[in-house]
Amino acid sequence: MNNERIVRVLTKMDEKGLTQLIVSDPLSIRFLTGIMVNPGERLYALILKSNGEHVMLLNYLYFVSNTGFKEVWFSDMEDQISIIADQIDTTKTLGIDKTWPARFLIPLQEKCPKLKTVWGSDCVDGVRAVKNEEEIKIMKEASAINDRVMEMVKEYIKEGMTEKQIADFIDNEYLKAGASGTSFDTIVCFGPNAADQHHEPSDTRTLKTGECILIDMGCVWKGYCSDMTRTFYCKEASAKEQEIHDIVHEAVLRAESVIKPGVRFCDIDAQARDYIDEKGYSEYWKIRLGHFIGQEDHEYGDVSPINKNVAEPGMIFSIEPGIYIEGKYGVRIEDLVLVTEDGHELLNAVEKKWEIIG
Amino acid sequence: MNNERIVRVLTKMDEKGLTQLIVSDPLSIRFLTGIMVNPGERLYALILKSNGEHVMLLNYLYFVSNTGFKEVWFSDMEDQISIIADQIDTTKTLGIDKTWPARFLIPLQEKCPKLKTVWGSDCVDGVRAVKNEEEIKIMKEASAINDRVMEMVKEYIKEGMTEKQIADFIDNEYLKAGASGTSFDTIVCFGPNAADQHHEPSDTRTLKTGECILIDMGCVWKGYCSDMTRTFYCKEASAKEQEIHDIVHEAVLRAESVIKPGVRFCDIDAQARDYIDEKGYSEYWKIRLGHFIGQEDHEYGDVSPINKNVAEPGMIFSIEPGIYIEGKYGVRIEDLVLVTEDGHELLNAVEKKWEIIG
Repeated sequence: MNNERIVRVLTKMDEKGLTQLIVSDPLSIRFLTGIMVNPGERLYALILKSNGEHVMLLNYLYFVSNTGFKEVWFSDMEDQISIIADQIDTTKTLGIDKTWPARFLIPLQEKCPKLKTVWGSDCVDGVRAVKNEEEIKIMKEASAINDRVMEMVKEYIKEGMTEKQIADFIDNEYLKAGASGTSFDTIVCFGPNAADQHHEPSDTRTLKTGECILIDMGCVWKGYCSDMTRTFYCKEASAKEQEIHDIVHEAVLRAESVIKPGVRFCDIDAQARDYIDEKGYSEYWKIRLGHFIGQEDHEYGDVSPINKNVAEPGMIFSIEPGIYIEGKYGVRIEDLVLVTEDGHELLNAVEKKWEIIG
Repeated sequence: MNNERIVRVLTKMDEKGLTQLIVSDPLSIRFLTGIMVNPGERLYALILKSNGEHVMLLNYLYFVSNTGFKEVWFSDMEDQISIIADQIDTTKTLGIDKTWPARFLIPLQEKCPKLKTVWGSDCVDGVRAVKNEEEIKIMKEASAINDRVMEMVKEYIKEGMTEKQIADFIDNEYLKAGASGTSFDTIVCFGPNAADQHHEPSDTRTLKTGECILIDMGCVWKGYCSDMTRTFYCKEASAKEQEIHDIVHEAVLRAESVIKPGVRFCDIDAQARDYIDEKGYSEYWKIRLGHFIGQEDHEYGDVSPINKNVAEPGMIFSIEPGIYIEGKYGVRIEDLVLVTEDGHELLNAVEKKWEIIG
């Protein structure tokens, strides 16, 4: 049992005045206990309590034993809302994590009208957001694989190839490198497709001279994700594309440059956003600058104008500004960044400047 | 737009005194609108209103247009809880469907302390549970494919094959039949593995004379699922296995025989459960008798001792009693059953009596 992680969650609960917290996200439970269950639509939760009497709610169908916690077992045929109610203090406030579905929360609220339910997800998500040494080591390895495969794909790409062919090459190299898979469906876009953020790699669209090639990719390594984007140009890049690439490149550098403990995420975001705005391209980039990452490609927390929280050592998130001009081209550059004690460290080392390939 | 389905939901809302309902399950939204989005962790909802002014909450990242509803678009950077609050009447009761996660529900409750939130999932799940003619036709086709592939696999199985080899055969035959995939990971278990409800097909475990072969399988056809289980015996079956098979077989027949409109699900369940209890095997079967099925293999609703609702024409669910004796063998027999105007119709026709194959 990873007691140190649970202690960190309990400390955050204490700071919020919470004595009990429902943790339902299977990846949070894995993070805290090492136990992994895919419950589907069924009830599955770890109830953390400030008195240390934590409880695991387990369906007989889960293949789990000797969790080290108090185990409350039930079948599909039992009144599971009563089982939850029996395991909490219904006269006190109960924290709830982000994933708990209304199928349990609403009936519990209806059954216990005096129970106060509040947002408690930050207690556990805040701990997941700060990676420990072991996690940082694994995530650096995951990004090192990503860097190596990005360098390989740069050599591999040739005019006339399809997007799907390149995506397949990447996926295959991940597996050869020992990764367990991709952290999300690999994105490869040529020319105007790069401006479409819903684009899936086409198995008919072939690469032509002068087109941009946007590649957004990541692998899963020992249960943790990598994620990086680079934009290249086939044989030549127009002056306009070079200019746009340089703007996005400068935006990444500016945002990354200010990352250190204590800096607010909205201020990191502003570094990129203000610069792109100043250059006249704000209408071509309307999404957040980055997202947290760990066991999932998108974890709780983001780098955006509305996040006033501050960076802490051990946090890892993406910085990925872009300029997307519909029907023409798109540029995105994305690194993963680790906050260190006195600054930051990039997890990706692949060149970001515009580059001719193919 | 499938207005008829929305009208049925609005009628149910009216019966419950609800004037507004959050529908967040992407499959419910597809069912009601034909629109399919995979929102991941992002906000996605259809707000149904008794006054007909329905609203779709859409992130700019979703690839959707001209929904026919009032569309409220937002980016990741906006305060989405305020956006939800602006689209509902916070002085009235708001129904919530089963999948809405606490990441939206709790902050909405905190932002609008006077808003009453209640269970509203049955309004839409109840409509999804009752299939219309078109859905029944598709689900019959899906089960007809399942029957055909089960007959084929019966001929295919030979002593010495692995579980994985048989599962791969089934998956491949589905694709050849034009199905888009499986409704769940195909289950093939030999001998003692059949008693383990977590078992995954092994690529080393080979079939031996005298072993039972439990196969639980289903395919997706035009967006709808099939699901059937049969248990066979390789070359011979012991007298004990024949006896247990006969008990499970009789339990299925008894449960199926009482299905008609107006019968309570707990009473259908009791038909099988009381019989297995009477035969002395109740400790070897502790799960529900069946589950609803449609766009998902497991839809809302089950056939269990705690479901006091009654069957209605158009409902389709599984009947799947079993006896699982750890370390020895397991028997499960599962059919899908459609409730008709005056009784029921089985969607599966494969023989249920014990049968020697291999």
